[in-house]
Amino acid sequence: MNFVEIIARKRDGGELSAEEIRTFIRGATSGTVADEQLAALLMAICIRGASAAETRALVEAMSDSGVRWRLEEAFAGVVDKHSTGGVGDSVSLVFAPLLVACGVPVAMMAGASLGHTQGTLDKLAAIPGFAPARGRAEALERLQSCGAVFAAQSAEIAPADRKLYALRDVTATVPSLPLIVASIMSKKLAVGAGRLVLDVKWGSGAFRKTLDEASALAEALADVARAAGVRTSVLITDMDEPLGRKLGSASEVRNALAVLEGRGEDRLRVVTLELAVEALALAGQPRAAARAKAEAALADGRARAAWDKIVRAHGGDPDPAHLALPRRTVAVPAPRSGYVAAVDGEALGWLAVTLGAGRRKQGDVVDPAAGIDIRVGTGEHVAAGEPLLVLELGERDIDVRLATGRAVNAFRLADVAPPGRPLVAARIGDHE
Amino acid sequence: MNFVEIIARKRDGGELSAEEIRTFIRGATSGTVADEQLAALLMAICIRGASAAETRALVEAMSDSGVRWRLEEAFAGVVDKHSTGGVGDSVSLVFAPLLVACGVPVAMMAGASLGHTQGTLDKLAAIPGFAPARGRAEALERLQSCGAVFAAQSAEIAPADRKLYALRDVTATVPSLPLIVASIMSKKLAVGAGRLVLDVKWGSGAFRKTLDEASALAEALADVARAAGVRTSVLITDMDEPLGRKLGSASEVRNALAVLEGRGEDRLRVVTLELAVEALALAGQPRAAARAKAEAALADGRARAAWDKIVRAHGGDPDPAHLALPRRTVAVPAPRSGYVAAVDGEALGWLAVTLGAGRRKQGDVVDPAAGIDIRVGTGEHVAAGEPLLVLELGERDIDVRLATGRAVNAFRLADVAPPGRPLVAARIGDHE
Repeated sequence: MNFVEIIARKRDGGELSAEEIRTFIRGATSGTVADEQLAALLMAICIRGASAAETRALVEAMSDSGVRWRLEEAFAGVVDKHSTGGVGDSVSLVFAPLLVACGVPVAMMAGASLGHTQGTLDKLAAIPGFAPARGRAEALERLQSCGAVFAAQSAEIAPADRKLYALRDVTATVPSLPLIVASIMSKKLAVGAGRLVLDVKWGSGAFRKTLDEASALAEALADVARAAGVRTSVLITDMDEPLGRKLGSASEVRNALAVLEGRGEDRLRVVTLELAVEALALAGQPRAAARAKAEAALADGRARAAWDKIVRAHGGDPDPAHLALPRRTVAVPAPRSGYVAAVDGEALGWLAVTLGAGRRKQGDVVDPAAGIDIRVGTGEHVAAGEPLLVLELGERDIDVRLATGRAVNAFRLADVAPPGRPLVAARIGDHE
Repeated sequence: MNFVEIIARKRDGGELSAEEIRTFIRGATSGTVADEQLAALLMAICIRGASAAETRALVEAMSDSGVRWRLEEAFAGVVDKHSTGGVGDSVSLVFAPLLVACGVPVAMMAGASLGHTQGTLDKLAAIPGFAPARGRAEALERLQSCGAVFAAQSAEIAPADRKLYALRDVTATVPSLPLIVASIMSKKLAVGAGRLVLDVKWGSGAFRKTLDEASALAEALADVARAAGVRTSVLITDMDEPLGRKLGSASEVRNALAVLEGRGEDRLRVVTLELAVEALALAGQPRAAARAKAEAALADGRARAAWDKIVRAHGGDPDPAHLALPRRTVAVPAPRSGYVAAVDGEALGWLAVTLGAGRRKQGDVVDPAAGIDIRVGTGEHVAAGEPLLVLELGERDIDVRLATGRAVNAFRLADVAPPGRPLVAARIGDHE
């Protein structure tokens, strides 16, 4: 098959066969198709789109580009959870022990920080000794010992995605919906949990800015999962302001612990609970009973106990006193009084990166102590001079005046409170 | 300027500024923009198109990627002619001496054979000793001595085109109208004749299959030329069957000589005359007088004499007896009697390549003796057993049965004569 003819058909808006898509992905993985040809096809897909059948074929071919862990076969009932990325999103750290406390095993492939969003892998690295599982055998071992596993993104999982992502990054083809779906789902299918809970973020701090964009992504993800026989539920949740009020590795672990101890922030707790309810519903439990069960596990200390067990099973030290603390803190006061009309999560995410809490490029070192402690949220009133947030400074030398200016600019203050928006905008999936 | 942002704007159908297009072309020429990024932008241009302003900016940037000969400044009134490529198109060989005989200097950059169309450079190479001009100084020297120059396509002329063409070839972005216009016109502007006659071919043997496609190309070429201050006339001419009935280097030179001697084929003579009239009209001569003048130059031997002078100025031997002859010939008879309803020029072009008259890939050697002598044209009647064409075999071992089969398949015979179509379909340009 001539690869130029494959590119030409997609260029003209035609549909590629599953065999042509396999040729594409095999060529990308083996390097037998030139980068410029891959780039041309990626751009054609980005502009012309892809049908549901093409998207499914793309996901399967990318999953098959590496090994498949098939966790469901070895560990029935295991649930995977994935978020499309947001700011202050410490859900994974609460979700795993909460589900374990409710008797449901959890497997998550954790990614590193990239762009303005912080990655779960970096948050876990703030826990002394914590080592994510590498490879299928280690993943199963952790599941056996504590009911949950955090695995590191591995080169053996969907290597085609790694190759295509590097090309998409430099060719302006990142926003393509079918390519996003293929990137997410190829890794999910390669890990091979039989149940999947997806958290699609929308709003100014997310990659999908509008509810329509988020809904399209959610539907496409659910379609692929359904076709692959994975029981899936998708929530579309708000990321117009940061989900949790702590940004930065050690700070987010502490924040997650507060929720696991039955305290903690409302928004973070509610989103995690709703996702946990979806996971329990996928396991066949009625939603009302599932919610009561999850709330009880947070209230009575079982979720908190499961956390310690999970951390120990991963070689980590669960004592929160051993988490890094900021070297110093700088409060950023409100320049006027008023209602918080908007908090720019993306701007605060990038500010946290500047402080050392994330990566501008691969290879950058993340400082677990650095971060941001947000003190007011959308709709709340703040008096002039009261802190909007507190900069938590780590090892890096920071221009505090510049950072303070950026922090202030991330808040919009107004004389009236803005209308509220729901934390969970929609649910799409296999159940009820 | 971030190149990914440039790609993204074109991906979304936006318009690029002249400065962004210069960044693109400088990056392509210097190699500082990666091939995968160039490929992504080429695909985005191919699908989204380009405005007239973008196309003009692209042409100028590509012309500026190498040296500009500025022939008009050194040799006022010089005319360039370009054909978009066809089969049996020996016009250039007649056009140059005809114009010289009419007192108008001619400069043409001649290309090598590629695909199913034969190149002027290979036809000239059939003349013993003929050496095309290389570089501006040699071009001016030839113009001084004989009034015309055939120059070889040079690496110093629009090197960005060479780079982009190689990428377009493997990324299915060859058919893009703005990229075709940029490829043609960047080289024309770099040579820098002040007057330009363009022959845009349409029909089954051409790259543009429909009159609409050919008209769009003609308009776009004329627009760019006009903006660059080049006086231009474009004819859209028929290539539904081969223009001349001889295919192959030595054979096409002999065919051109026949026209220059006032004999020769009608279709080849008429198209060349019409293009010559356009060139004379661009020089300010009324069309009727121009036509009479050109016809006289063919009839009275002045065009023929100019040919000998041009060949000698290029170091060639003008004696037609020294042109290569086929080693043997094989007549291909008509399988039935009937009217010729269609002659597939592209199929015959590829058959000529198989015989040795062209190149499948760069580096292939062209055999000047190999070719095809077509004996019947569209609308003519042929009796069963009479030759459709004669295969002219050179050095290469040919499977004659296979070649004969391909030759027969290139002709469609019918019981009634097909409707005729005009040789010159339209004229677009600066003059009446």
